[in-house]
Amino acid sequence: MARYKNLYELANRKHFRVAGLMSGTSADGIDVAIIDVKSASQCMVAFETQGYSPSLRKAILRLCDPKTSHVDDICHYNFLLGRLFAQALIKTCQQKKIPLESIHLIGSHGQTIYHIPDGRRCGNQKVRSTLQIGEPSIIAELTGITTVADFRPRDIACGGQGAPLVPYTDYLLFGHKRYCRALQNIGGISNVTYLPASGGIDDILAFDCGPGNMVIDMIVSMITKGRSKYDRNGAMAQKGQVHETLLKKFLKHRFFRVQPPKTTGRELFGMVYSQQFYEAGIAMGLSSADIVATATALTAESIAQSYQRFLPKMPDQMILCGGGAKNHSLVRMLAERLKDTRLMTTNDFGIDSDAKEAVSFALLAWSTIKGMANNVPSATGASRPAVLGKIIPGSFV
Amino acid sequence: MARYKNLYELANRKHFRVAGLMSGTSADGIDVAIIDVKSASQCMVAFETQGYSPSLRKAILRLCDPKTSHVDDICHYNFLLGRLFAQALIKTCQQKKIPLESIHLIGSHGQTIYHIPDGRRCGNQKVRSTLQIGEPSIIAELTGITTVADFRPRDIACGGQGAPLVPYTDYLLFGHKRYCRALQNIGGISNVTYLPASGGIDDILAFDCGPGNMVIDMIVSMITKGRSKYDRNGAMAQKGQVHETLLKKFLKHRFFRVQPPKTTGRELFGMVYSQQFYEAGIAMGLSSADIVATATALTAESIAQSYQRFLPKMPDQMILCGGGAKNHSLVRMLAERLKDTRLMTTNDFGIDSDAKEAVSFALLAWSTIKGMANNVPSATGASRPAVLGKIIPGSFV
Repeated sequence: MARYKNLYELANRKHFRVAGLMSGTSADGIDVAIIDVKSASQCMVAFETQGYSPSLRKAILRLCDPKTSHVDDICHYNFLLGRLFAQALIKTCQQKKIPLESIHLIGSHGQTIYHIPDGRRCGNQKVRSTLQIGEPSIIAELTGITTVADFRPRDIACGGQGAPLVPYTDYLLFGHKRYCRALQNIGGISNVTYLPASGGIDDILAFDCGPGNMVIDMIVSMITKGRSKYDRNGAMAQKGQVHETLLKKFLKHRFFRVQPPKTTGRELFGMVYSQQFYEAGIAMGLSSADIVATATALTAESIAQSYQRFLPKMPDQMILCGGGAKNHSLVRMLAERLKDTRLMTTNDFGIDSDAKEAVSFALLAWSTIKGMANNVPSATGASRPAVLGKIIPGSFV
Repeated sequence: MARYKNLYELANRKHFRVAGLMSGTSADGIDVAIIDVKSASQCMVAFETQGYSPSLRKAILRLCDPKTSHVDDICHYNFLLGRLFAQALIKTCQQKKIPLESIHLIGSHGQTIYHIPDGRRCGNQKVRSTLQIGEPSIIAELTGITTVADFRPRDIACGGQGAPLVPYTDYLLFGHKRYCRALQNIGGISNVTYLPASGGIDDILAFDCGPGNMVIDMIVSMITKGRSKYDRNGAMAQKGQVHETLLKKFLKHRFFRVQPPKTTGRELFGMVYSQQFYEAGIAMGLSSADIVATATALTAESIAQSYQRFLPKMPDQMILCGGGAKNHSLVRMLAERLKDTRLMTTNDFGIDSDAKEAVSFALLAWSTIKGMANNVPSATGASRPAVLGKIIPGSFV
């Protein structure tokens, strides 16, 4: 492991190799990104996803549901996931022949199991909250590497929604003098970071657009009785027709019209919403392919509508990332709806389109250890900039 | 708030004023201790307990029970308690006329809601875990003061039980050249730190002895149908007779014979055990006072037996702290059982007997920010010394 006298000596480094660890709302597995950071430039070293076993994924999804979650399981899986996060990094280093000792810092998002961004009433005030597991003390101990984790709570403490966090690193990585850019991530949920040309950090707009792959995935899983977990390359949607009535009905969801900043998750667009969508499609006599095509259009249309409703100007470039960037049907539907915008992916910039979120948590950790404020108040609604995360010292000599 | 350029400038201070915040397993309220620390000496500045409302206490106890706990409540109360911990410190500062800005650092233990010190089987390994709530990012933000929190997980990551943590500060505060001392805390659970004369950190023995006030409190609550929460000054026990058969029956609990290091909590000596104790007493035809006297003797006898079984030598001095130090019946019963040991309280050393645990978390935070290892492997069973806790930066200029 990297050997420093203490945290303070570590923080003074000029060059950092940082690992970013995260698992998304779909709880598929742990994304591991390793990047080299110098003050103004970043370079991707490696990216891997270490999948969860089906039984672990089921157990995690049980933790996310108030009805099936219990304190003993949450206590246990927090520590188990900490171990798995550490092992995912160690395994990735072995696979890519990167010495673990060459990594100076880890940024870990953990696994979100609950999120109350709008707050729960308590007396005459509202308390917002969020809950990520994957105990970072375990990560720091098993790797010997100083770990920064749990970034969302501090933004909530500043009055924000604790999300989105990627805009800060989108700004560092993709801000451009002449081009107005939209960084469009399509994971379980879809979210955009809008970076106006020559804009400052206060000009960033960022919000969740709505469901990303979540509804599509759940419907494919229902149709195939669990044999397929997602629509590979958008092949099922490709064979179907978008059904406008079904699409319009589900685009009426209140969330789509809420003014940003706003965030969402499994609470709004999870099993209940997907089941309703699927059953409405069946009731209309649609084929499986039609239902999947319409669910795909729901994601594309909700993204396009949110640009038209909430962005001050349509972007010159849309840079896609997340699993949705690989769904050809979804990309085609986006292109049809955003005719004057050039579609690209983060791969065009040397960053694997699946890796961007994990890269973000590496850069957040780096900026935290440097003492730099790294939330984007205009995106989260926070009342002030803050240094996010909790620092867990690694092993020092 | 204390204004530094960054965390590293803060850590380099010579003199620190540190607040320690904690709430025990009985979930009565938040203990706030404020101490001044120079490299080798500590001085108590203030101590207060800011009680939980009865409804909040009930809600917290619901979170501790797998049957009544849910992820949405855990998510919410983590943030709500963070706010209450911050407010408890702010209120204490106002009451004691201590400027909040004079405090450089906070150490917060939080509120334990679950603890699996023996581990849960997972594949061919055992995963130990623990869960404290009281979000420290909220504490750091609302006070502006750098906060160190969540000390137990790192010790568990090192293979320890994550408890007890006070031995480190017991050693700093009470280690003596000539006297062999036992620091006996009697909170919900009773625990001892044994400090041999002229001993080093590796000579410390520390473990949970068994129930402290927990069983007594629950039985008093059953008898009075909730009107009394504890046996004030031991007055009820004073009127009763210890029933040897009942006492012996409940001293047979397996935990009392387990070799240290060992820890326990509400899981073993909570409602189920207390109910059984109470019902056994009723079945034997005992009066309420007799049952309380016998429950008090259970605590005294389990402490005395654990000294005889597990300490290499009976201590010259027993230094009492925690709520149990105020239970005259309990103190009398201890004195009867430990005839060659001088009974004292931490008050004799300038530290309020209720305050010692909160003081400990202040000292743990101080040693963490200084980069000093602060677990006691011989007490927790950890395989190595480690710097405990997570560091959350306060507000810097």
